[in-house]
Amino acid sequence: MELLKDRIMKDGKVRKGNVLKVDSFLNHQMDIKLFEEIGKEFKRRFSDCDITKILTIESSGIGIACIAAQSFGVPVVFAKKNTTKNIDGALYSAQIESFTHGKTYNVIVSRDYLKPEDNILIIDDFLAKGKALVGLSQIVKKSGATLCGAGIVIEKGFQEGGKILRDAGMRIESLAIIKEMTDDGKIIFE
Amino acid sequence: MELLKDRIMKDGKVRKGNVLKVDSFLNHQMDIKLFEEIGKEFKRRFSDCDITKILTIESSGIGIACIAAQSFGVPVVFAKKNTTKNIDGALYSAQIESFTHGKTYNVIVSRDYLKPEDNILIIDDFLAKGKALVGLSQIVKKSGATLCGAGIVIEKGFQEGGKILRDAGMRIESLAIIKEMTDDGKIIFE
Repeated sequence: MELLKDRIMKDGKVRKGNVLKVDSFLNHQMDIKLFEEIGKEFKRRFSDCDITKILTIESSGIGIACIAAQSFGVPVVFAKKNTTKNIDGALYSAQIESFTHGKTYNVIVSRDYLKPEDNILIIDDFLAKGKALVGLSQIVKKSGATLCGAGIVIEKGFQEGGKILRDAGMRIESLAIIKEMTDDGKIIFE
Repeated sequence: MELLKDRIMKDGKVRKGNVLKVDSFLNHQMDIKLFEEIGKEFKRRFSDCDITKILTIESSGIGIACIAAQSFGVPVVFAKKNTTKNIDGALYSAQIESFTHGKTYNVIVSRDYLKPEDNILIIDDFLAKGKALVGLSQIVKKSGATLCGAGIVIEKGFQEGGKILRDAGMRIESLAIIKEMTDDGKIIFE
């Protein structure tokens, strides 16, 4: 998606440890006009699927998922990283190791909101090692719903997640795949 | 907002400890069509303000803020509850005590995304004791930006936050204000 790649080139900042900082438009400040174009592109790429629900994970996936949901005309469910007083009843859960935060989360989704008849599209901002995507797909599997695929805004193609999951049969549509980030801050796309 | 009140009456569930569970449409599963109407209503109520940015707090405010931002034509910034590798540089921070989670968070916003020339609308899903709203307004004040007001989806009118903050001069527009929740599960609006 050229609009997105141009924006990453313009405003993305490479930090040590293979961190790409895109918090001026994607995951701290959020450019809603850009999100609308991202949502339309996900719809275009998954136009062959009869998606009934979008699943994402807090926090930075939520905004993108909600705007994309307008293109699909479906509700969004977000997996929560901590149990709170406000979720009760039966839950689906999975363990997710976070590369960014350096810890492992228990993520949960209420059983009420994923049903065997659902066709699920997972949406997230980043794909690197693929831990979040694996955890979310485990939750979808436990619910009996059908996982149609995953829509990712930025994939770090130099990390293994995308390859492993595609090899395992998951359909992943990444709007920008980064081949390399150099020490002097250059971003090279696949 | 009648559409919202009707939905709360239909799908909201009262739990002990004055908890109102609305996770079927507001803060776990998210009804995006309803969010669009909520966004339009916030725009109608704040139509006299030249809002330049919406500020919210992760996680359950993000979806509502992003959809509302379409009505205002502005970006969204969400305050983060934990520092991560992906935020660096100077930060504004505030302490927020969470009623729901029973702990105190340090919340942060990058200085890059709140400027003295900004007119800020805070958006959040709930107002009860007002701790989140106080923390976010402290961050706005530190940035030198103007706080135009706060748009709240559901206010627990029987808790003190709304009264204290309105008495202190904050403009708060709550789309549904709950006067009472009874032991047998009835919800009574103001």
